[in-house]
Amino acid sequence: MRYFDDIQVGDRASFGRYPVTREEVLDFARKYDPQPFHLSDEAAAATHFGRLAASGWHTNAMTMAMLVAHHADAPVASLGAAGIDELRWLKPVFPGDTLRCETEVLEARASQSRPEMGIVRSRMTTFNQQDEPVLTFIANALIGRRPVRD
Amino acid sequence: MRYFDDIQVGDRASFGRYPVTREEVLDFARKYDPQPFHLSDEAAAATHFGRLAASGWHTNAMTMAMLVAHHADAPVASLGAAGIDELRWLKPVFPGDTLRCETEVLEARASQSRPEMGIVRSRMTTFNQQDEPVLTFIANALIGRRPVRD
Repeated sequence: MRYFDDIQVGDRASFGRYPVTREEVLDFARKYDPQPFHLSDEAAAATHFGRLAASGWHTNAMTMAMLVAHHADAPVASLGAAGIDELRWLKPVFPGDTLRCETEVLEARASQSRPEMGIVRSRMTTFNQQDEPVLTFIANALIGRRPVRD
Repeated sequence: MRYFDDIQVGDRASFGRYPVTREEVLDFARKYDPQPFHLSDEAAAATHFGRLAASGWHTNAMTMAMLVAHHADAPVASLGAAGIDELRWLKPVFPGDTLRCETEVLEARASQSRPEMGIVRSRMTTFNQQDEPVLTFIANALIGRRPVRD
Protein backbone atom coordinates (compact mmCIF):
# COMPACT_ATOMS: atom_id res chain seq x y z
CA MET A 1 0.00 0.00 0.00
CA ARG A 2 1.33 3.44 -0.94
CA TYR A 3 0.59 6.26 1.48
CA PHE A 4 0.81 10.05 1.18
CA ASP A 5 4.30 9.82 2.67
CA ASP A 6 5.45 7.68 -0.28
CA ILE A 7 4.34 10.11 -2.97
CA GLN A 8 6.81 12.57 -4.52
CA VAL A 9 6.26 15.57 -6.75
CA GLY A 10 7.19 14.49 -10.27
CA ASP A 11 6.05 10.88 -9.84
CA ARG A 12 4.61 9.63 -13.13
CA ALA A 13 2.52 6.65 -14.14
CA SER A 14 1.22 5.34 -17.45
CA PHE A 15 -1.62 2.83 -17.44
CA GLY A 16 -4.92 1.65 -18.84
CA ARG A 17 -6.39 0.37 -22.06
CA TYR A 18 -10.07 1.13 -22.64
CA PRO A 19 -11.67 0.20 -25.97
CA VAL A 20 -14.58 2.57 -26.64
CA THR A 21 -17.57 0.73 -28.08
CA ARG A 22 -20.48 2.23 -29.97
CA GLU A 23 -22.91 0.39 -27.70
CA GLU A 24 -21.38 1.90 -24.56
CA VAL A 25 -21.23 5.43 -26.05
CA LEU A 26 -24.95 5.21 -26.87
CA ASP A 27 -25.85 3.65 -23.51
CA PHE A 28 -24.09 6.40 -21.52
CA ALA A 29 -25.49 9.17 -23.73
CA ARG A 30 -29.07 7.91 -23.47
CA LYS A 31 -28.86 7.90 -19.68
CA TYR A 32 -26.83 11.03 -18.99
CA ASP A 33 -26.15 13.19 -22.03
CA PRO A 34 -28.78 12.66 -24.75
CA GLN A 35 -27.61 15.44 -27.06
CA PRO A 36 -28.03 14.58 -30.77
CA PHE A 37 -24.27 14.41 -31.52
CA HIS A 38 -23.88 11.74 -28.80
CA LEU A 39 -26.81 9.66 -30.14
CA SER A 40 -26.42 9.39 -33.92
CA ASP A 41 -23.89 9.70 -36.73
CA GLU A 42 -26.41 11.66 -38.78
CA ALA A 43 -26.89 14.36 -36.14
CA ALA A 44 -23.16 14.48 -35.36
CA ALA A 45 -22.31 14.93 -39.06
CA ALA A 46 -23.98 18.35 -38.92
CA THR A 47 -21.65 19.50 -36.10
CA HIS A 48 -17.91 19.94 -35.53
CA PHE A 49 -17.83 16.35 -34.19
CA GLY A 50 -18.37 14.99 -37.71
CA ARG A 51 -19.58 11.61 -36.45
CA LEU A 52 -20.96 9.99 -33.31
CA ALA A 53 -18.79 11.12 -30.37
CA ALA A 54 -18.77 10.08 -26.71
CA SER A 55 -20.10 12.45 -24.07
CA GLY A 56 -17.22 14.25 -22.38
CA TRP A 57 -18.64 13.04 -19.07
CA HIS A 58 -18.38 9.51 -20.41
CA THR A 59 -14.71 10.08 -21.24
CA ASN A 60 -14.23 11.22 -17.64
CA ALA A 61 -15.97 8.07 -16.38
CA MET A 62 -13.85 5.78 -18.60
CA THR A 63 -10.75 7.58 -17.31
CA MET A 64 -11.85 6.96 -13.73
CA ALA A 65 -12.35 3.27 -14.55
CA MET A 66 -8.75 3.06 -15.77
CA LEU A 67 -7.51 4.87 -12.64
CA VAL A 68 -9.37 2.55 -10.26
CA ALA A 69 -8.07 -0.52 -12.13
CA HIS A 70 -4.53 0.92 -11.90
CA HIS A 71 -4.92 1.39 -8.15
CA ALA A 72 -6.12 -2.21 -7.83
CA ASP A 73 -2.72 -3.23 -9.23
CA ALA A 74 -0.76 -0.57 -7.31
CA PRO A 75 -2.80 0.16 -4.17
CA VAL A 76 -2.83 3.65 -2.72
CA ALA A 77 -4.50 4.81 0.50
CA SER A 78 -7.15 6.79 -1.42
CA LEU A 79 -9.81 8.61 0.58
CA GLY A 80 -11.57 10.06 -2.43
CA ALA A 81 -11.11 13.37 -4.20
CA ALA A 82 -11.98 16.89 -3.10
CA GLY A 83 -12.31 18.18 -6.61
CA ILE A 84 -11.07 18.71 -10.12
CA ASP A 85 -9.50 21.77 -11.72
CA GLU A 86 -8.91 22.84 -15.32
CA LEU A 87 -10.76 19.96 -16.97
CA ARG A 88 -10.53 20.26 -20.76
CA TRP A 89 -12.00 18.06 -23.46
CA LEU A 90 -9.33 18.49 -26.12
CA LYS A 91 -10.53 16.18 -28.90
CA PRO A 92 -13.69 14.15 -29.52
CA VAL A 93 -13.64 10.47 -28.49
CA PHE A 94 -15.19 8.15 -31.08
CA PRO A 95 -16.43 4.55 -30.99
CA GLY A 96 -13.49 2.39 -32.03
CA ASP A 97 -10.96 4.54 -30.15
CA THR A 98 -8.80 2.94 -27.45
CA LEU A 99 -7.94 5.16 -24.50
CA ARG A 100 -5.02 5.12 -22.05
CA CYS A 101 -3.84 7.42 -19.24
CA GLU A 102 -0.78 9.21 -17.90
CA THR A 103 -0.52 10.96 -14.54
CA GLU A 104 2.06 13.24 -12.98
CA VAL A 105 2.15 14.47 -9.38
CA LEU A 106 2.27 18.29 -9.34
CA GLU A 107 2.05 19.01 -5.63
CA ALA A 108 1.77 17.08 -2.34
CA ARG A 109 1.00 18.76 0.97
CA ALA A 110 -0.03 17.50 4.40
CA SER A 111 -3.52 18.53 5.48
CA GLN A 112 -3.49 21.18 8.23
CA SER A 113 -6.96 20.32 9.49
CA ARG A 114 -6.85 16.53 9.10
CA PRO A 115 -3.44 15.16 10.16
CA GLU A 116 -4.38 11.66 8.99
CA MET A 117 -4.28 12.66 5.32
CA GLY A 118 -2.49 14.67 2.67
CA ILE A 119 -3.67 16.37 -0.51
CA VAL A 120 -2.04 15.34 -3.77
CA ARG A 121 -2.55 17.40 -6.92
CA SER A 122 -1.94 15.36 -10.07
CA ARG A 123 -2.38 16.05 -13.73
CA MET A 124 -4.32 13.34 -15.54
CA THR A 125 -4.11 13.10 -19.31
CA THR A 126 -6.14 10.64 -21.37
CA PHE A 127 -4.87 9.74 -24.85
CA ASN A 128 -6.42 8.01 -27.83
CA GLN A 129 -4.68 5.29 -29.89
CA GLN A 130 -2.96 7.98 -31.98
CA ASP A 131 -1.35 9.38 -28.83
CA GLU A 132 -3.47 12.51 -29.09
CA PRO A 133 -4.56 13.90 -25.71
CA VAL A 134 -8.37 13.88 -25.58
CA LEU A 135 -8.89 14.92 -21.95
CA THR A 136 -6.81 16.58 -19.25
CA PHE A 137 -7.57 17.67 -15.71
CA ILE A 138 -5.93 18.26 -12.33
CA ALA A 139 -7.27 16.04 -9.54
CA ASN A 140 -7.06 17.02 -5.88
CA ALA A 141 -6.91 13.62 -4.19
CA LEU A 142 -7.03 12.88 -0.47
CA ILE A 143 -4.46 10.23 0.46
CA GLY A 144 -4.05 8.66 3.89
CA ARG A 145 -0.76 9.01 5.78
CA ARG A 146 1.31 6.00 6.70
CA PRO A 147 0.12 4.69 10.08
CA VAL A 148 2.65 5.25 12.86
CA ARG A 149 3.75 2.05 14.61
CA ASP A 150 5.11 1.96 18.18
CA MET B 1 -34.10 28.82 -29.48
CA ARG B 2 -31.83 30.93 -27.28
CA TYR B 3 -28.55 32.05 -28.81
CA PHE B 4 -25.37 33.50 -27.34
CA ASP B 5 -26.77 36.96 -28.08
CA ASP B 6 -29.74 36.30 -25.78
CA ILE B 7 -27.63 35.37 -22.74
CA GLN B 8 -26.84 37.95 -20.05
CA VAL B 9 -24.39 37.84 -17.17
CA GLY B 10 -26.44 37.18 -14.03
CA ASP B 11 -29.07 35.02 -15.78
CA ARG B 12 -30.19 32.28 -13.40
CA ALA B 13 -32.15 29.06 -13.80
CA SER B 14 -33.40 26.43 -11.38
CA PHE B 15 -34.40 23.02 -12.73
CA GLY B 16 -34.28 19.26 -12.45
CA ARG B 17 -35.45 16.52 -10.14
CA TYR B 18 -33.32 13.37 -10.11
CA PRO B 19 -34.11 10.59 -7.62
CA VAL B 20 -30.91 8.68 -6.86
CA THR B 21 -31.54 4.94 -6.69
CA ARG B 22 -29.35 2.32 -5.07
CA GLU B 23 -29.47 0.23 -8.22
CA GLU B 24 -28.17 3.09 -10.37
CA VAL B 25 -25.43 4.01 -7.84
CA LEU B 26 -24.19 0.41 -7.91
CA ASP B 27 -24.50 0.08 -11.68
CA PHE B 28 -22.44 3.24 -12.33
CA ALA B 29 -19.85 2.31 -9.70
CA ARG B 30 -19.37 -1.22 -11.05
CA LYS B 31 -18.70 0.14 -14.54
CA TYR B 32 -16.69 3.28 -13.81
CA ASP B 33 -15.69 3.71 -10.16
CA PRO B 34 -15.57 0.36 -8.33
CA GLN B 35 -14.08 1.67 -5.09
CA PRO B 36 -15.41 -0.15 -2.00
CA PHE B 37 -17.31 2.86 -0.61
CA HIS B 38 -19.29 3.09 -3.87
CA LEU B 39 -20.12 -0.63 -3.86
CA SER B 40 -21.31 -1.58 -0.36
CA ASP B 41 -22.66 -0.10 2.87
CA GLU B 42 -20.27 -2.26 4.87
CA ALA B 43 -17.15 -0.90 3.17
CA ALA B 44 -18.50 2.68 3.22
CA ALA B 45 -19.20 2.45 6.98
CA ALA B 46 -15.43 2.23 7.56
CA THR B 47 -14.86 5.57 5.74
CA HIS B 48 -15.96 9.19 6.11
CA PHE B 49 -18.88 8.41 3.77
CA GLY B 50 -20.54 6.34 6.51
CA ARG B 51 -22.78 4.46 4.06
CA LEU B 52 -22.98 3.65 0.36
CA ALA B 53 -22.33 6.86 -1.58
CA ALA B 54 -22.51 7.64 -5.30
CA SER B 55 -19.34 8.14 -7.30
CA GLY B 56 -18.65 11.85 -7.73
CA TRP B 57 -18.41 11.18 -11.48
CA HIS B 58 -21.92 9.72 -11.26
CA THR B 59 -23.17 12.91 -9.58
CA ASN B 60 -21.64 14.85 -12.49
CA ALA B 61 -23.42 12.58 -14.98
CA MET B 62 -26.79 12.94 -13.20
CA THR B 63 -26.28 16.72 -13.21
CA MET B 64 -25.63 16.63 -16.97
CA ALA B 65 -28.84 14.60 -17.43
CA MET B 66 -30.80 17.34 -15.64
CA LEU B 67 -29.12 20.04 -17.74
CA VAL B 68 -29.88 18.31 -21.05
CA ALA B 69 -33.52 17.78 -19.99
CA HIS B 70 -33.72 21.48 -19.05
CA HIS B 71 -32.40 22.47 -22.47
CA ALA B 72 -34.99 20.23 -24.12
CA ASP B 73 -37.64 22.42 -22.46
CA ALA B 74 -35.74 25.70 -23.02
CA PRO B 75 -33.59 25.12 -26.12
CA VAL B 76 -30.22 26.78 -26.40
CA ALA B 77 -27.84 26.73 -29.38
CA SER B 78 -25.35 24.54 -27.50
CA LEU B 79 -22.20 23.47 -29.36
CA GLY B 80 -20.74 21.49 -26.46
CA ALA B 81 -18.38 22.54 -23.70
CA ALA B 82 -14.70 23.35 -23.82
CA GLY B 83 -14.12 22.45 -20.21
CA ILE B 84 -14.91 22.64 -16.53
CA ASP B 85 -13.19 24.63 -13.78
CA GLU B 86 -13.23 24.44 -9.99
CA LEU B 87 -15.29 21.25 -9.73
CA ARG B 88 -15.88 20.40 -6.05
CA TRP B 89 -17.73 17.47 -4.52
CA LEU B 90 -19.04 19.18 -1.38
CA LYS B 91 -21.11 16.42 0.24
CA PRO B 92 -21.66 12.73 -0.43
CA VAL B 93 -24.72 11.75 -2.51
CA PHE B 94 -26.63 8.76 -1.14
CA PRO B 95 -29.25 6.41 -2.56
CA GLY B 96 -32.64 7.91 -1.67
CA ASP B 97 -31.44 11.50 -2.26
CA THR B 98 -33.23 13.65 -4.83
CA LEU B 99 -31.06 16.12 -6.72
CA ARG B 100 -31.84 19.43 -8.41
CA CYS B 101 -29.76 22.16 -10.08
CA GLU B 102 -29.21 25.89 -10.18
CA THR B 103 -27.13 27.80 -12.71
CA GLU B 104 -25.91 31.37 -12.94
CA VAL B 105 -24.14 33.00 -15.89
CA LEU B 106 -20.82 34.48 -14.73
CA GLU B 107 -19.34 35.69 -18.01
CA ALA B 108 -20.26 35.78 -21.71
CA ARG B 109 -17.81 36.70 -24.42
CA ALA B 110 -17.78 36.43 -28.21
CA SER B 111 -15.18 34.04 -29.60
CA GLN B 112 -12.30 35.87 -31.31
CA SER B 113 -11.33 32.91 -33.46
CA ARG B 114 -14.79 31.53 -34.24
CA PRO B 115 -17.24 34.35 -34.97
CA GLU B 116 -20.17 31.93 -35.16
CA MET B 117 -20.07 31.23 -31.41
CA GLY B 118 -19.57 32.70 -27.97
CA ILE B 119 -18.20 31.30 -24.73
CA VAL B 120 -20.46 31.37 -21.68
CA ARG B 121 -19.04 30.68 -18.22
CA SER B 122 -21.74 29.52 -15.81
CA ARG B 123 -21.67 28.24 -12.26
CA MET B 124 -23.61 25.00 -11.83
CA THR B 125 -24.64 23.94 -8.34
CA THR B 126 -26.36 20.63 -7.58
CA PHE B 127 -28.39 20.35 -4.37
CA ASN B 128 -29.87 17.45 -2.43
CA GLN B 129 -33.40 17.38 -1.00
CA GLN B 130 -32.19 19.20 2.11
CA ASP B 131 -31.01 22.11 -0.06
CA GLU B 132 -27.40 21.26 0.72
CA PRO B 133 -25.03 21.85 -2.22
CA VAL B 134 -23.40 18.53 -3.12
CA LEU B 135 -21.52 19.56 -6.29
CA THR B 136 -20.42 22.81 -7.86
CA PHE B 137 -18.42 23.63 -10.97
CA ILE B 138 -17.93 26.31 -13.60
CA ALA B 139 -18.76 25.22 -17.15
CA ASN B 140 -17.25 26.87 -20.19
CA ALA B 141 -19.96 26.33 -22.80
CA LEU B 142 -19.83 27.10 -26.50
CA ILE B 143 -23.09 28.70 -27.66
CA GLY B 144 -23.97 29.55 -31.26
CA ARG B 145 -24.69 33.17 -32.24
CA ARG B 146 -28.06 34.21 -33.63
CA PRO B 147 -28.03 33.72 -37.39
CA VAL B 148 -28.07 37.02 -39.32
CA ARG B 149 -31.02 37.37 -41.69
CA ASP B 150 -30.99 39.67 -44.71
